[in-house]
Amino acid sequence: MTATHRSRRARLAALLGEYDVDALLVTRGVNVRYLTGLSSSNAALLVREDGSAVLATDSRYIETARRVCPDVELVERRDVAAALVPLAERPGVEAHDLSVAAYRDLGGHTGLVDRLVERVRVVKDETEIEALRTACDLTDQAFADVVGTIAPGMTEREIARALEIRMMELGADKPAFDSIVASGPNGSVPHHSPSGRPVERGDLITMDFGALYDGYHADMTRTVALGPVADWQRELYDLVGAAQRAGLEAAAPGASLRDVDAAARDLIVAAGHGDHFEHGLGHGVGLEIHEDPFMRPSGAGRLEDRVPITVEPGVYLPGRGGVRIEDTLVTRPGGPELLTRTTKELLIL
Amino acid sequence: MTATHRSRRARLAALLGEYDVDALLVTRGVNVRYLTGLSSSNAALLVREDGSAVLATDSRYIETARRVCPDVELVERRDVAAALVPLAERPGVEAHDLSVAAYRDLGGHTGLVDRLVERVRVVKDETEIEALRTACDLTDQAFADVVGTIAPGMTEREIARALEIRMMELGADKPAFDSIVASGPNGSVPHHSPSGRPVERGDLITMDFGALYDGYHADMTRTVALGPVADWQRELYDLVGAAQRAGLEAAAPGASLRDVDAAARDLIVAAGHGDHFEHGLGHGVGLEIHEDPFMRPSGAGRLEDRVPITVEPGVYLPGRGGVRIEDTLVTRPGGPELLTRTTKELLIL
Repeated sequence: MTATHRSRRARLAALLGEYDVDALLVTRGVNVRYLTGLSSSNAALLVREDGSAVLATDSRYIETARRVCPDVELVERRDVAAALVPLAERPGVEAHDLSVAAYRDLGGHTGLVDRLVERVRVVKDETEIEALRTACDLTDQAFADVVGTIAPGMTEREIARALEIRMMELGADKPAFDSIVASGPNGSVPHHSPSGRPVERGDLITMDFGALYDGYHADMTRTVALGPVADWQRELYDLVGAAQRAGLEAAAPGASLRDVDAAARDLIVAAGHGDHFEHGLGHGVGLEIHEDPFMRPSGAGRLEDRVPITVEPGVYLPGRGGVRIEDTLVTRPGGPELLTRTTKELLIL
Repeated sequence: MTATHRSRRARLAALLGEYDVDALLVTRGVNVRYLTGLSSSNAALLVREDGSAVLATDSRYIETARRVCPDVELVERRDVAAALVPLAERPGVEAHDLSVAAYRDLGGHTGLVDRLVERVRVVKDETEIEALRTACDLTDQAFADVVGTIAPGMTEREIARALEIRMMELGADKPAFDSIVASGPNGSVPHHSPSGRPVERGDLITMDFGALYDGYHADMTRTVALGPVADWQRELYDLVGAAQRAGLEAAAPGASLRDVDAAARDLIVAAGHGDHFEHGLGHGVGLEIHEDPFMRPSGAGRLEDRVPITVEPGVYLPGRGGVRIEDTLVTRPGGPELLTRTTKELLIL
């Protein structure tokens, strides 16, 4: 992987000319990992215009750093940012990551750079996509293993725990994020925390969860019915399903972010539910669960090739419930490659 | 819990006079949770000198906020910090949390406040200690259930996964942090990531892990031997064990942080291993796995009553291995209350 990380640093270095800096001080943990391979709670990386790099970390991680990135100069220090800033003449800092206090402690004599490593991270290489594919496979498999066990009386929290444990048994490093299980009226809360509510006949149950594998995050939502299914539930499900298919079809390299959002949103608005779909259509996934690009009405920019994203329309009816359907996919010239492959037919348990 | 959160906000408000501000904009997620009960990836809270408060969050969390903190004024906005700043004349921001970019976007006309909510969080109430007690019980139980299954050929990663799955089966929300399992020579890396190395006869195996329960983090380390035990391993274990006992004895309300560190460190230095114990003796635990106070040679300040902390000396011998022993405890006037209660006798498997 050493060559991969070196080439990522070179791509970053080539962008530094956009700012009045001769180096970037990378403090965001996932960005340090992306550029060096080192996972550490206390590390920083200085990447210079010529592509050379110096990594600072403390005694807890220095042995690992020596092994993981032997081609990077190492500095063993606890105050990692302060150790690196003097090594460049006009360093820039990651303005979206560095705290005001840390910036002040550095003396403030640094340039501000916004989300530059994040830009480099948008298009994934096939090694990254393979890790995401595994994460999504584990997610699909856990869903398949757990969904059949859901029965009246089981609580939202028990369902969430069962999905999470099964993902880990199958090989996930851990859940990619706090799982959402929202049943019945709780389905109207997009980010509902699993509660002690027992699921009941007549509920829709929305499960939003995913596996973390080798640093990469899967993200999938399925809404199932604990039958019988009321007409309004079936109509809502069909609407969100149609919106999700429209979003998937629109998610092509070259498409503008807001057009992808609109492809799904327009259907929901036309059905009179515009006010009940208040979040964006989807987001990039990778080393973070939410990363660039973001598909929403205000989205600027376009999708590229080999960008893993989610497409996740939802409709939320206060007091009644909701439906969300979400896949993780990779943009490809011939159409999206679905990484989550669980059926989107309405499952009636 | 509403009264608890209100009283926490009042304690915070009473400290605002130390700064030239009339309100604090709280942006750090765990601090918002501590002061309101709301867990959200996008929320901010303005606490004014008179103890009144306004919470901003977006549509995904607003229903939950209404339920969780009915006594707080709510604003539904996506840009939560910008929504709140105009509601005070001289607001301060959390300088250790807010990014330089977010600070710039607010116009920079805010005061800088350092770790003030963190100060309020140091001394825990009995509800918080009860959550920590449960988290530590789950940790102890998972260790008891898994340690007997460790056998030659099992990999570090498999041991870590087994501990994590068992904690979740027992009722943990999730692992409190990325578990460390370091065997044989890997034991010399304090923060070793569990690898594919199979454990072997003659290894020391260090396991550093814990359960998260209701937002509170347990943290425990035990080092066990996959016998037979070499003399140097036994000596190292006895030394670290003695240092850990000395640290526990010193951890009394009123003790200075550096004295607590020194109580354990002096023994290790006297044994000639000062260079092999490079991290601090321990840290506070609560809503974060590492929080104030920090016991280390440079520590300023003193322990108070009802402060949950870890005591975790270690000795790491490059190329050979290491030993670390760690408990989570609560300071009490009559001596520490151990929350992790797994034996510290050397277990020989």
